[in-house]
Amino acid sequence: MKPLGPIPSGYGANTEGRLLIGGHDVTALIEAAGDTPLFVYDLGMVARRVERLRAAMPAGLEIHYAVKANPFAPLVSAMAGIVDGFDVASDGELRRAIEAGMAAAHVSFAGPGKKARELEAAIRAGATINLESEHEADRALSIGEALGLTPRLAVRINPEFELRGSGMRMGGGAKPFGVDQERVAPLVRRLAEAGADYRGLHVFAGSQSLDGDAIIETQANSVALARQIDDRTGIRAPLVNLGGGFGIPYFAGDVALDVEAIGAALAGRIDGEAERYAIELGRWLVAEAGVYLARIVDRKVSHGKVFLVTDGGLHHQLAASGNFGTVVRRNYPVAVATKFGAEPGEEASVVGCLCTPLDRLADDAMLPRAEPGDIIAVFLAGAYGATASPTAFLGHPAPCEIAISAESAVILT
Amino acid sequence: MKPLGPIPSGYGANTEGRLLIGGHDVTALIEAAGDTPLFVYDLGMVARRVERLRAAMPAGLEIHYAVKANPFAPLVSAMAGIVDGFDVASDGELRRAIEAGMAAAHVSFAGPGKKARELEAAIRAGATINLESEHEADRALSIGEALGLTPRLAVRINPEFELRGSGMRMGGGAKPFGVDQERVAPLVRRLAEAGADYRGLHVFAGSQSLDGDAIIETQANSVALARQIDDRTGIRAPLVNLGGGFGIPYFAGDVALDVEAIGAALAGRIDGEAERYAIELGRWLVAEAGVYLARIVDRKVSHGKVFLVTDGGLHHQLAASGNFGTVVRRNYPVAVATKFGAEPGEEASVVGCLCTPLDRLADDAMLPRAEPGDIIAVFLAGAYGATASPTAFLGHPAPCEIAISAESAVILT
Repeated sequence: MKPLGPIPSGYGANTEGRLLIGGHDVTALIEAAGDTPLFVYDLGMVARRVERLRAAMPAGLEIHYAVKANPFAPLVSAMAGIVDGFDVASDGELRRAIEAGMAAAHVSFAGPGKKARELEAAIRAGATINLESEHEADRALSIGEALGLTPRLAVRINPEFELRGSGMRMGGGAKPFGVDQERVAPLVRRLAEAGADYRGLHVFAGSQSLDGDAIIETQANSVALARQIDDRTGIRAPLVNLGGGFGIPYFAGDVALDVEAIGAALAGRIDGEAERYAIELGRWLVAEAGVYLARIVDRKVSHGKVFLVTDGGLHHQLAASGNFGTVVRRNYPVAVATKFGAEPGEEASVVGCLCTPLDRLADDAMLPRAEPGDIIAVFLAGAYGATASPTAFLGHPAPCEIAISAESAVILT
Repeated sequence: MKPLGPIPSGYGANTEGRLLIGGHDVTALIEAAGDTPLFVYDLGMVARRVERLRAAMPAGLEIHYAVKANPFAPLVSAMAGIVDGFDVASDGELRRAIEAGMAAAHVSFAGPGKKARELEAAIRAGATINLESEHEADRALSIGEALGLTPRLAVRINPEFELRGSGMRMGGGAKPFGVDQERVAPLVRRLAEAGADYRGLHVFAGSQSLDGDAIIETQANSVALARQIDDRTGIRAPLVNLGGGFGIPYFAGDVALDVEAIGAALAGRIDGEAERYAIELGRWLVAEAGVYLARIVDRKVSHGKVFLVTDGGLHHQLAASGNFGTVVRRNYPVAVATKFGAEPGEEASVVGCLCTPLDRLADDAMLPRAEPGDIIAVFLAGAYGATASPTAFLGHPAPCEIAISAESAVILT
């Protein structure tokens, strides 16, 4: 038997024992969407997450959403009304951000390999480009000049420190991201001299950390580094984006972050000037609000072991299958959504419909006995799900995605 | 320094030192396609691969193509004219196979989680369903009855043996694939009694093996198992699909399979009845014929280390980034396509444009010095490339794909 990850709070069962998402019975949601596999995002849960974060963080601190975590249009539109800015990673995401109603002045564009087309789109729109290198600065300045537009430019720093305990380290040592910290001040001066609209600094030292002390330390380091660069340049960065790194508990034994403690520590560091700082979160804001639903197509017993074969799989939920940046596969939180109230009755493995042994959604899990027709729920599907998976693999259709509006029972597609 | 994988034979440089694919200069191919990133498939190379396999294998043995390896329409169409059958894994692939001109009678459909819609599509088309369980047999028979059509059914066996040394084991012990071997004979009898058109047996014990002796052993075991089942049922399987498992050399030190030795051994086993056997290959037929081309957007030095940042990445070539079913990341064969004739001059890492440290195409590789504008080629991109990658990740456009016709200089899109 292998443990399942922890089901996020906020999910319960109705009297028929079926999972409720945003107050809706999963079977009703599937009927509304038309079919499985299906991603459901609860925008009410997203809104409550933003509220909690805002209450925890210093008053005035900007909260940005990293669109890459989930670019589903109704979710991005809802987010545009409740956060202070968006971070995008391509011209496609930039369009999505602006279509969602976020003012371009509050959109920043980071990413190490921006194409000329993308730099041009950002400059035309008036979004801030987080420069990843001196060469990119030259390119942005020259495109701005050619267009007769003043580019909004910030500098992403490759800091000497890293985010301890992060799932992905993006700072410390040689990295493709940002400008090595000792070269940032000269670049900032050069941007100012070139007449660019200097927008500030960006530090993103890592992601998916569950170590609150490490996040507190990294934020403190980032604040100190930004001040040091200001001192060296004599130019005050209008905005310092401290990045994200806030992890969520995916696996058994993981403990959720104490964001209130992080906020209190940050308040002490930036007292009186919180308005010029931002944090940028993706996963932490949206992962728990999403559920991936797949239908059991077959129940097989092979050599005494039970396999629940679903119509979903790694083509929609690559990370849950353990095949995206993971060394040792562990189970995400998974449940039988149509028997959500029932006690576990047997050990079973949940697999996808793909013809590959990589396609596993839960290994040797204790679950209520399930049959063909039952629905499997994979939780934590609100971030890095559909768009972080090879949806065209094996020629299956794209998954359905729906969002449940925060204000009403409306289902958005 | 980390070694690069071996560049497949058949690639050379023109007098300007640029990589030739099917006789075409890469820069001309990019111009024809319109942009990078770009997948190029050389159909002449595919055809020669099929010819070599046919010459190596016993006369009469059917050669099937597993469409999942590369479903690009012009490639599948070309393949339809040179192989004896297709294996598909979804109704989407089934449509693709039939549109490509393969007769449905030579198409088989395997996969553990076939939906009712998919079983119906296969039965209507007249394709063979490789049954993965008794429950699937019941479903197929009942759908056939409802449609008034006789389903073509074969049985996929979960064999007791496995393919030693395979990248992915799909036989041996409890598995979601096929029917445990001791239960196959009763199922075959039941199909015959139910009036189905019994098409035979399917064994697929593993994939991506470079151990020729293991493949020979597995094929011998599969032939023996099929005969044993025939004896137990008293019904001769019309076709025995021995599966695939033929690996290709991705990494430094990998040695290509001796398919001639495999063919000779198989000929000894199936002498006089080769016509009732098939092998089913995907990767081995097409991987080497594909090249993924990305343009260098930035050349960065961080802490003394050179990064070549491209406009491609793991969203198109997940496996090359080391994030798809791999425990330890190793370098695929990668080259500077615009300096293909040049000697290595520096150590550099090639990364993609995504804002994640997972997005690596070559780590610490010795390459000719390259600059922004140069083209990076990632070889072995003909199988499990574009469709096995999260193309929507971070909102980038889908990659271009083109094929170079075997007969002429025509570029197919």
